[in-house]
Amino acid sequence: MTTTLQDCRAFDAQDPLRPLRDLFTLPEGVIYLDGNSLGVLPRAARARGAEAVSQEWGQGLIRSWNDADWFTLPQRLGDKIGRLVGAKPGETVATDSTSVNLYKVLSAALHIARSQDPGRTVVISERNNFPTDLYIAQSLCKERGCTLRLVEDGQAAHALGEEVAVLMLTHVNYRTGAMLDMGALTAAAHREGVLAVWDLAHSAGAVPVDLHAADADFAIGCGYKYLNGGPGAPAFVWVHPRHANRFEQPLSGWWGHAAPFEFTPGYRPAAGIARYLCGTQPILSMTALECGLDTVLAAEPLGGVAALRAKSLALTDLFIRLVEERCAGHGLGLATPREHDRRGSQVCLTRAEGAYAIVQALIARGVTGDFRAGDGPGGARPDILRFGFTPLYIGFEDTWHAVEHLRQVLESAEWQHPEFNRQHAVT
Amino acid sequence: MTTTLQDCRAFDAQDPLRPLRDLFTLPEGVIYLDGNSLGVLPRAARARGAEAVSQEWGQGLIRSWNDADWFTLPQRLGDKIGRLVGAKPGETVATDSTSVNLYKVLSAALHIARSQDPGRTVVISERNNFPTDLYIAQSLCKERGCTLRLVEDGQAAHALGEEVAVLMLTHVNYRTGAMLDMGALTAAAHREGVLAVWDLAHSAGAVPVDLHAADADFAIGCGYKYLNGGPGAPAFVWVHPRHANRFEQPLSGWWGHAAPFEFTPGYRPAAGIARYLCGTQPILSMTALECGLDTVLAAEPLGGVAALRAKSLALTDLFIRLVEERCAGHGLGLATPREHDRRGSQVCLTRAEGAYAIVQALIARGVTGDFRAGDGPGGARPDILRFGFTPLYIGFEDTWHAVEHLRQVLESAEWQHPEFNRQHAVT
Repeated sequence: MTTTLQDCRAFDAQDPLRPLRDLFTLPEGVIYLDGNSLGVLPRAARARGAEAVSQEWGQGLIRSWNDADWFTLPQRLGDKIGRLVGAKPGETVATDSTSVNLYKVLSAALHIARSQDPGRTVVISERNNFPTDLYIAQSLCKERGCTLRLVEDGQAAHALGEEVAVLMLTHVNYRTGAMLDMGALTAAAHREGVLAVWDLAHSAGAVPVDLHAADADFAIGCGYKYLNGGPGAPAFVWVHPRHANRFEQPLSGWWGHAAPFEFTPGYRPAAGIARYLCGTQPILSMTALECGLDTVLAAEPLGGVAALRAKSLALTDLFIRLVEERCAGHGLGLATPREHDRRGSQVCLTRAEGAYAIVQALIARGVTGDFRAGDGPGGARPDILRFGFTPLYIGFEDTWHAVEHLRQVLESAEWQHPEFNRQHAVT
Repeated sequence: MTTTLQDCRAFDAQDPLRPLRDLFTLPEGVIYLDGNSLGVLPRAARARGAEAVSQEWGQGLIRSWNDADWFTLPQRLGDKIGRLVGAKPGETVATDSTSVNLYKVLSAALHIARSQDPGRTVVISERNNFPTDLYIAQSLCKERGCTLRLVEDGQAAHALGEEVAVLMLTHVNYRTGAMLDMGALTAAAHREGVLAVWDLAHSAGAVPVDLHAADADFAIGCGYKYLNGGPGAPAFVWVHPRHANRFEQPLSGWWGHAAPFEFTPGYRPAAGIARYLCGTQPILSMTALECGLDTVLAAEPLGGVAALRAKSLALTDLFIRLVEERCAGHGLGLATPREHDRRGSQVCLTRAEGAYAIVQALIARGVTGDFRAGDGPGGARPDILRFGFTPLYIGFEDTWHAVEHLRQVLESAEWQHPEFNRQHAVT
């Protein structure tokens, strides 16, 4: 029996997380399936932003470093993020960008691995990992006389060995939505004496993560995707306590100093995760990030990340089922794993041609997804139509309508209109 | 003949820059002499912030990367900063923190210097340079097998030699307000085959800077001091075109890639200054920074930085004169040079005891300066009472009243009250 619009409305009516949608300002007439690129605006962020600008900056000025608790923002926000990824209080800070934080933890991981065994000079990652992670690793490996070795998806565990220092992986792949088994891969790494660095950009706030249960070594992640922290929101960094005090990271700025207000000429790293701070942080963006984190934490009384995950899987299951029922015969493939334990919170479709234009036609209809280019004709990676499902604000009826628009775009061939075929920069 | 309050009011009445004060929201009842720590709120920032949050983020969402020109913010803001420091268009980007940007340019400078002469392994700086600059240099030197050699103030030119790779200096000292001769020191460095890296944190927007005339190699600086960009505003980085394409900086994130939206696994640096970008930037803080930059650029029709400089010198001359006339006999010394060409836009006073409490008593009276601790009894560096003068919004009558409050605090000994002697963290 096929699923109907009425069924979807009934799912929404029964959804215990439905009230959380009211925490957001959703643009009129848009079904936003791109929260994995930039989360939507929390309703609280407007007033909080005005307060931070007019009161804290405008009236409080430098007193706000203490009076408005600016100075403790990285830790306060870090602890809120920690609740979503299985970190304990005091282990996480919100700061800098994901790329900069990766540089810090990968540098520390290489130091630790090589201090125990100088022969370990290889970093393993997947060729399809998020490119900026690979760029940072390339640069650090070049500096340190190490080698970045890239493997195909799913092959990382077979690439470990005595010359390997660090396994650097992204938990949920940005292109395919495939989720890795963090616990199993970390255990495989540790069996070979390899440290595990995890990028949680597409995981934090979206899927269950338990860094301690997985026994991960280092983790970093993004504030502006499923954490709804606003455009370019500061990122986060977590270090297992067994490593936190052991090595200095190279971006040794004043905010990571043991006594930052003594202004002594010599660097003395703060204890624990605070040493992963560097320079002064963008406070206005930090306050917006806190509003975003609060929307995810608002799910805690309703079951927290587990409840979000259950709804996310129901949404992505529904999307896959509806696409297969209603868009059959239009050449769409599925890049995202069907197995729940291998799927993140997005669904990626493939199509041999027209993927970019179809995404543009959908956007013109008010269904926002995004396009990720493949390798071109004959390449291993197809073009991708990517749809992210943020269960905080996306519902089952939204999912129905998104597929219905997709069906109409395909059947009408409106995607072939020239205006949908002009490519320009998107993120 | 001594200067009177009436004189100061007359100076304000004749001040062609006086209308610029209306570009700011100044807190009621406060004379804010701490714009060298955090500039005051530009009036435009409130509406701009609300627009960025509600419209660009809330309604535009990911489309705003193009439609609201988020993607070009680092260059657009960089070019605005460039107009204030003698850079040409396309040579400067606004991004990351000052510390992170210093890491990038110091790393590049070491690469260049050592590729020409591997024997150059020393970085020269001043012991009294801003500590975070020294911390970053220490860390990089440790990584690269180099040495950071610190000299006393004014001795840098004598420390250059064939083993030196980089001269790293801050143009205006944060503690004393002393300004270095950028052109002469850079020329001295170049004569010895040494590259010059300049920190403009206390210079940009405050004193004339001409990076090309000085023939500087690299420069970085801060967005939240004299540029009024808001708490923790993104910083900036400038690289002389002769170096910009020569070396990769180690923080090789997606935004510095030649084709960031191709998502290729290999890093290929963008041409020119764009390669000094790394990860995604905090857009809300960037939009506030633009409002701050626009306040400084609003001086251009009124004579620009030269006019700001003339007023700044008049203000700091007046402050020094009034302190000497009206606070004589209270043990105050002057840490800031009297010579105009050696003075930044702040005045620092010394006092053997009570400096911290005097600053607190002034703050309680609505005169905001700040305290910088010295080395303690017998140390080379005295405690400092620091007063920054931002000519955009500080006037001559303000200066009179600030000194009058200082006189009253000293004569009444109210600074000895216990409430002014409890120290806590300040930035």
